[in-house]
Amino acid sequence: MTKKTVDIVVVGGSAAGVTAAITARRHYPSKTVLLVRKEAKVSIPCGIPYICGTVGSPENNLIPDAALEKEQVEILVSEATAINREQKHVVTLAGEIAYDRLIIATGSYPNTPPIPGVELGGVFTILKDVEHLRKMQEHLKSARDIVVVGGGFIGIEFADEIRKMGGKTITIVEISSHCLSLSYDEEFCIEAEQVVQSNGITILATRKVTGFTGDGQVTGVQLSDGKILKADAVILGTGSKANSELGAEAGLRIGATGAIDVDRAMRTSDRHIFACGDCAEKISFFGGGHSTLKLASIATLEARIAGANLFGITRENPGTVGVWSTALGDFALGTAGLTETMAKAWGYDTVVAMVEGPNRHPAGMPGGAKTKVKLIFECNSGVLLGGQIRGNCAAGEMINAVSACVQRRMTAEDIAMFQMGTHPALTASPIVYPLVNAAELAIKAIRSRKVSQ
Amino acid sequence: MTKKTVDIVVVGGSAAGVTAAITARRHYPSKTVLLVRKEAKVSIPCGIPYICGTVGSPENNLIPDAALEKEQVEILVSEATAINREQKHVVTLAGEIAYDRLIIATGSYPNTPPIPGVELGGVFTILKDVEHLRKMQEHLKSARDIVVVGGGFIGIEFADEIRKMGGKTITIVEISSHCLSLSYDEEFCIEAEQVVQSNGITILATRKVTGFTGDGQVTGVQLSDGKILKADAVILGTGSKANSELGAEAGLRIGATGAIDVDRAMRTSDRHIFACGDCAEKISFFGGGHSTLKLASIATLEARIAGANLFGITRENPGTVGVWSTALGDFALGTAGLTETMAKAWGYDTVVAMVEGPNRHPAGMPGGAKTKVKLIFECNSGVLLGGQIRGNCAAGEMINAVSACVQRRMTAEDIAMFQMGTHPALTASPIVYPLVNAAELAIKAIRSRKVSQ
Repeated sequence: MTKKTVDIVVVGGSAAGVTAAITARRHYPSKTVLLVRKEAKVSIPCGIPYICGTVGSPENNLIPDAALEKEQVEILVSEATAINREQKHVVTLAGEIAYDRLIIATGSYPNTPPIPGVELGGVFTILKDVEHLRKMQEHLKSARDIVVVGGGFIGIEFADEIRKMGGKTITIVEISSHCLSLSYDEEFCIEAEQVVQSNGITILATRKVTGFTGDGQVTGVQLSDGKILKADAVILGTGSKANSELGAEAGLRIGATGAIDVDRAMRTSDRHIFACGDCAEKISFFGGGHSTLKLASIATLEARIAGANLFGITRENPGTVGVWSTALGDFALGTAGLTETMAKAWGYDTVVAMVEGPNRHPAGMPGGAKTKVKLIFECNSGVLLGGQIRGNCAAGEMINAVSACVQRRMTAEDIAMFQMGTHPALTASPIVYPLVNAAELAIKAIRSRKVSQ
Repeated sequence: MTKKTVDIVVVGGSAAGVTAAITARRHYPSKTVLLVRKEAKVSIPCGIPYICGTVGSPENNLIPDAALEKEQVEILVSEATAINREQKHVVTLAGEIAYDRLIIATGSYPNTPPIPGVELGGVFTILKDVEHLRKMQEHLKSARDIVVVGGGFIGIEFADEIRKMGGKTITIVEISSHCLSLSYDEEFCIEAEQVVQSNGITILATRKVTGFTGDGQVTGVQLSDGKILKADAVILGTGSKANSELGAEAGLRIGATGAIDVDRAMRTSDRHIFACGDCAEKISFFGGGHSTLKLASIATLEARIAGANLFGITRENPGTVGVWSTALGDFALGTAGLTETMAKAWGYDTVVAMVEGPNRHPAGMPGGAKTKVKLIFECNSGVLLGGQIRGNCAAGEMINAVSACVQRRMTAEDIAMFQMGTHPALTASPIVYPLVNAAELAIKAIRSRKVSQ
């Protein structure tokens, strides 16, 4: 086995690793970059629910290598098994690779909850592995009674996609009182649940799974209320945990949530080693406390910071704002920043404004949908803490305009002065453009609160 | 005739007037607000092209009175004929109204170019008047050969909607080398022209109309190249001019472009009288020079400034960024800020980055479209001057995220660190999210320019 030498080694081939490698090449065009990944083919993480229905197979849900090839990033398909920090090399199954800088982007793996029977056949975690997903899809094809454990993003999107396979009885079991309650305020969760239920999926909330029954293969799911659900397939959508082992075994400091500890430059405790994505500790945009969010979009931001900082710090992580969206057919939800529930739990004195109206003008223009916008402001400063949008497919981009406002810590007054483009066939009327209209209502509410104090 | 007294009078019932009245009530809830408008029913200005096709009639394209009623704004349908500034009252055909503060929002009217024959029957300007539009629509129904003069927003959207009536021969005559060339860079204009042409509409660019022929009714359009087009209907989409007469006759100062002069608080030369919308002078966000843009979205920003400032200045107009979008079926374009053409004409040293890719991930997700994003930065500061997007319906909201970046004078470095939400069914992949990806390319281009200097 020959020992290879490159300037920059990236371990991990998903969103963080690919973006870190591309960023490193763009910012340091004279440096060589090698990306080491275990998988020959890499699943698009957020696209996994769609393999069952919309896109048809795991092979239709792959991160293309084109961007890496375009930036002349070398790819090595092998497993990294150790890091020798003193000699600055990565040990892989294909040999040792000497690095000047190393980026760890080993991602996360699904939580397997310690529920009796979880090892039974037919019980699947959402492992980001094409072969595993192919087997899961095969099993789902012949399954009749499917239970999804966990009503978060992945759980409800999976349930809705499995439904498209046809002829299944699908039940979501959710431990809290509503699906999506970690991601959206209750009124939005209820709307999403109504869409899920109207598609014929059963939601059992405020219930825990206490066991899986079966002999070799799963046949039932026991709930905390004593009920047993018939099941020949179970999907576990119960979160994920950082895959920090490679870093931990190399003696890198591990953070409070179990991920690799990093500073705002995305450096680990070894200043020649950076970490980004799900394997790295995250901090919140709102004060820098620990964040347990794990999203591909956050991973790519961190990767852009790590990749740019390898030979001199120019970027600092402002902390994750938390921006995401959820789609169920034509129904879409999005959040940027804090929900009202989060803001209250954090002790904020909030002022909330909510508006609802057509996203076309006149309302009769085709392709439109009633769009609801909720903005949450801190009362004294008027600073926007977060927003939520329910609408159709444009909600996914609209929440990014809200994200821009949160990131720039814009106030209700700033947003009331927002200069938006409007068009009859594409947006709401400028008279009642929802971000601006909600900001004006918030100003009025803040003022009346202050008058009454 | 009794004399009425109210705290705040708004003259004009379109986007600026309605928004000013609502804003005044929200910011001064103890004040009475009366809105005077000529029209019993008010057309949505940007929706006018759609009366011929998509929405079917001018009656389906009206600004609803609901928002005014909800904010308890009184409506008077009458014409304001004069302002008595000394006695602080507005003269209307229904009597005099004493005001404490007055907002003029009288809008604009279409340019009628001084072309011989322009007075012939069958030649129509786009007057924002329901009765006029109803007559125009009636005429278009029986017309066979239709010429649209001017290939701006209104011209091409009108042409595309008239096409939906069926059985027409439609020609757009455009004086410059491309349709939409005041609004988009050439490569976007060409794409829009291809959509228009693929729908069977003829575009004759780099040609002037020199005359209209006919005896009472138009029968032909003479072009500068000697050609004569057969025509039994002509639509003039040749811009608009401020309707500043009411203000001018009252002795208010008139600005460089012929509109009512206003300061950054939207005050006219009389400090009890404000003006907003198409009738008011506009300044650019880029340095405060005169702007000739006239858009409903700009009108509503100005109205929010005027309405809030009536009894004490709290808002200042930062100048118009210039944000708009254009739709032709599923094809949509948007601009925020300066185009490359504008930036170069203004003397900027620009760096341009352009990216194109699917707005779904994986690309096979339904409802997606290849989306092109062009960002224009000032080279030395890295500040974003403007952006253009070509995509599908979500482009109308995506350009508003770009607008947020322009308004906050964000740099390429800021945008490279943008925290966007992404979703397989709603957006591009986070690895190549177009705003961020274009910003990274711009950083690289700026750096290589600096290295070579």
